[in-house]
Order: sequence, then structure tokens, then C-alpha cells
Amino acid sequence: MNIRAMVQRTQEVFILVYLTLFSKATGLKPYPKPSLPQVEGAAFCLSWRLAVETDNVRAWRTVPTQCLRYIETYMIGGQYDRDVDFLIGQILSYVNGIALSGDGMDAWILDVDDTCISNVFYYKSKRYGCDPYDPSGFKAWAMTGGCPAIPGMLGLFSKLVSSGFKVFMVTGRDEETLGQVTTENLHNQGFVGYERLILRTAAYKGQGAVAYKSNIRKQLAEEGYKIWGNVGDQWSDLQGDFVGNRTFKLPNPMYFVP
Amino acid sequence: MNIRAMVQRTQEVFILVYLTLFSKATGLKPYPKPSLPQVEGAAFCLSWRLAVETDNVRAWRTVPTQCLRYIETYMIGGQYDRDVDFLIGQILSYVNGIALSGDGMDAWILDVDDTCISNVFYYKSKRYGCDPYDPSGFKAWAMTGGCPAIPGMLGLFSKLVSSGFKVFMVTGRDEETLGQVTTENLHNQGFVGYERLILRTAAYKGQGAVAYKSNIRKQLAEEGYKIWGNVGDQWSDLQGDFVGNRTFKLPNPMYFVP
Repeated sequence: MNIRAMVQRTQEVFILVYLTLFSKATGLKPYPKPSLPQVEGAAFCLSWRLAVETDNVRAWRTVPTQCLRYIETYMIGGQYDRDVDFLIGQILSYVNGIALSGDGMDAWILDVDDTCISNVFYYKSKRYGCDPYDPSGFKAWAMTGGCPAIPGMLGLFSKLVSSGFKVFMVTGRDEETLGQVTTENLHNQGFVGYERLILRTAAYKGQGAVAYKSNIRKQLAEEGYKIWGNVGDQWSDLQGDFVGNRTFKLPNPMYFVP
Repeated sequence: MNIRAMVQRTQEVFILVYLTLFSKATGLKPYPKPSLPQVEGAAFCLSWRLAVETDNVRAWRTVPTQCLRYIETYMIGGQYDRDVDFLIGQILSYVNGIALSGDGMDAWILDVDDTCISNVFYYKSKRYGCDPYDPSGFKAWAMTGGCPAIPGMLGLFSKLVSSGFKVFMVTGRDEETLGQVTTENLHNQGFVGYERLILRTAAYKGQGAVAYKSNIRKQLAEEGYKIWGNVGDQWSDLQGDFVGNRTFKLPNPMYFVP
């Protein structure tokens, strides 16, 4: 045993003594001690999340099961909120630099789910996306009209409206079944003063989000609107045609909308 | 002082004793101890990096100074390598699903700097991007021809070539001054067997990367090439026209190429 190995061994014993002494008092569980596999796991989930957020991984169906704890911590432990707020700061600095035309045709597009109002509470019951998409479960949740506002996005929304932008809320939610409750949900969360809430009508049923939303934006462009910005939690909100002068991708590691 | 505070205080003393005893032996510096501001700082830098990688923050000139240590740790502490390797895994699974036409026109586009060969060693001297872009400094580095291969990307490159794809290396480097040394650098790092190395000629001088690279890809499309994939560390590698059937964004939190 050389000096270095001895020092290392002594350290290990010391840590063990320390953990044994204080684990009861602090309520911290020393076992399993932080091991390489755990660290590797978080590192893997961090790589997975980056790849998802950069649109490198597409059409994924569920969060990798080993990332359940990681995504839960990300979503409700503070970092998701910080990421959203940082992004909103960036959007606001862009907004503040815009010289409005003043012709009433300056527009912004905001997605609804997990952009303006949050489904994190619902997704908690779906293991933060480790369970596959459940259309009827999600519909039942949406029907409650209880999705809370994402605070920073409500602030951005208010800023846009008061600055004179026409704000279009564009969602893939079905108009027939969810139109009324979505209108009410947005209203009860303070999203008041938008120009139009656009939901998916029968004509767009079965269409992918990129095609559907491109079509909607095309119509707005044809009406003469200048789309200054476009905010969504899905890449499919921001791809295709007439995407807007700037697009902003909010984080969402819980699900993928094709 | 209640029990909890006492326990906490005792823990702190214990940790201090531990650090004092072993810091010399291990070479670890116990001061400054991890404090809340540092943790908060890491959270900010994590938000900043996500925003950069998702193309939400654009035309940024330098890494925020408070993120120097964070970016250094990211780049050389293992997570950058893991993110790159994870992404390459995704690319390979896409590659494996491609049915080549077999007409010799199946193409891939790879960027060069920080896609195939790495400038991390150079950027260490530029505080990992906290210092502003230094054209002559970078040129001097590039002239050494000593950029090492990014190992996983060399593996991907070899796989593409051996699978029958025509690989085009497309770089914003100036052909006149850096053509020779870039050819040699790629060669000495094992990038052998590509179809063409395309550098920036006088005709494209001063053009933004999106326009320049779109033009190059347009020419390849006109020659009849089908661009299956396009890999770069900059969004400007992957935006514009003829971007390819799939694009893949490698991480790079050190600099932004407009």
C-alpha cells in the first residue's frame, strides 16, 4: 500500500465514521452512498434532456424510466422555473427592442399547454412522462379547467397586450370538446385581452402540429399580421412556415408533440 | 441554540476538521467552501447554457464571466463528452435506419470546427469563451494544424464513409489561408475518405454562415446529392435552405458564429 492509497483509504474510513455518526441525527441516509452509477445516471439524464431540448431526439414517446427522479427534481425542484424565467428575461429584452408599426397588425403567437398554463400537476400522476401519453386522462384533466398559469408567462402576456401587440393563443386542443373550458381556464388564470384563441377545428383533425400551426400562421400572415414572436414548449410550435421573426422554445422534458 | 443548529454546527466543524486534515494530502483546496451563491450561480449558468443550446439566446459575444468555472467544468469535466457521445448514439441509430439509394448521391454534411476537430484546448486560453473572439489568435491556433479529433465524431465519420455515404466537410474557414493546414489537420486526425472539403472562398467573404452554408448545400442539391444528415455545433450550420433530412446540433457553449 503506497502513501496515496493509504490516504485514500483513511479518507474513506473517515467519511464512513462521519456518515455513521451523523446519519441518524440529520435524517440523512448514508446508504446507498453516492456511487458512480447514480452520478452516471444523472449525467445520462442531463444528456438526454439536452438532446430533447435541442431537437436532436425526436418523436420520443416516454421519458427514460431511469430519469424519473431526475425529471421530477428538474420540474418541481426549481431549475425548470429558473430556465423558464431566464428565457422570459430574454424574450422581454427582445420585446423591449421592437418598434411597433402601430397599425394594429403587430402580432405574437403563444402556445397554450405548458407555455401559458401548466400541466405539471397532471404529469406528476403520469410519472413526469415516464408513462405513455394518455389521451383520455389528459382530456379529463383539461376538462377541469384547473391548469395554473405559468407565472412568468402571464407576466409576458400582460406586457405584450399592454404594449399593443395582438396576441394569438394557438393550441392543438380540440375546439369542439375543449373550446369552452380552455377559454374559461385561460380567463380564470388571468389571460385576458388576447386577440384570438385558436383551437383545432374538425378541418385540422389528425394533422401534425407543424402542418396545423403553419396553416394557422399562414392565415394570420394573409390577414396582414406581422408575427414578431412565437413561443412554445414544443419544437412543432416553432417549425414549418411563417414561424415568426423570433421563436422561443420553452423547456419541456415530459412529452413530445409530433 | 437548538438541537438542530447544534448538529449542524457540529457537522460544519467536523467537515472543517476533515478538510484541514486532508486538503494538503489530497491537494484539494477546502476554501472557498461550497456556498449558496455558487449553487445559485451554477443554476444561472445551467439556464444560460440551455438557452444558448436551444437557440433562444442569439448573437451572444462572450460567456458570462460568472460562468467561467461552470463552463470549464462542463467542457473538460466529462459532461460535454457525455453529451456529444449521447448525441452520436442518436445519430448512429438514425444512420442505421437509412436505406441508401446506392446511386452514389447519398450525402452527409459535417461542419469542421468543434464538430469533427476540437478547439477546446485553444479556448482554454480564452477562458472558455469569457474572452471575446480573437480572429488572429484563432488563426494562429488553426495554423498549427493541431486540433485533435473529437473521438466519437471520428467514429461517426468512419461509419458514414464505410457505409457508402458521400461526406462533405463544410467549414467557414478561409480557403486561401487555412485550406492547406485544415486538409492536413483533418488527415492527421484520421478524417480520410471524405468526398470534398469545402472552405470559404473569396466569393463568400463577409457572408453570414447561414447564407454561405445554404449556398453550398444548394449547390450540392443541384448536383443531385440527397442530404441525409447535417451535423454542426452552431445553429447557423443547420438553418437556412437545404438543411438536410435531419440536423443534429452538437453542444458548444464557448462561442457563437453568426
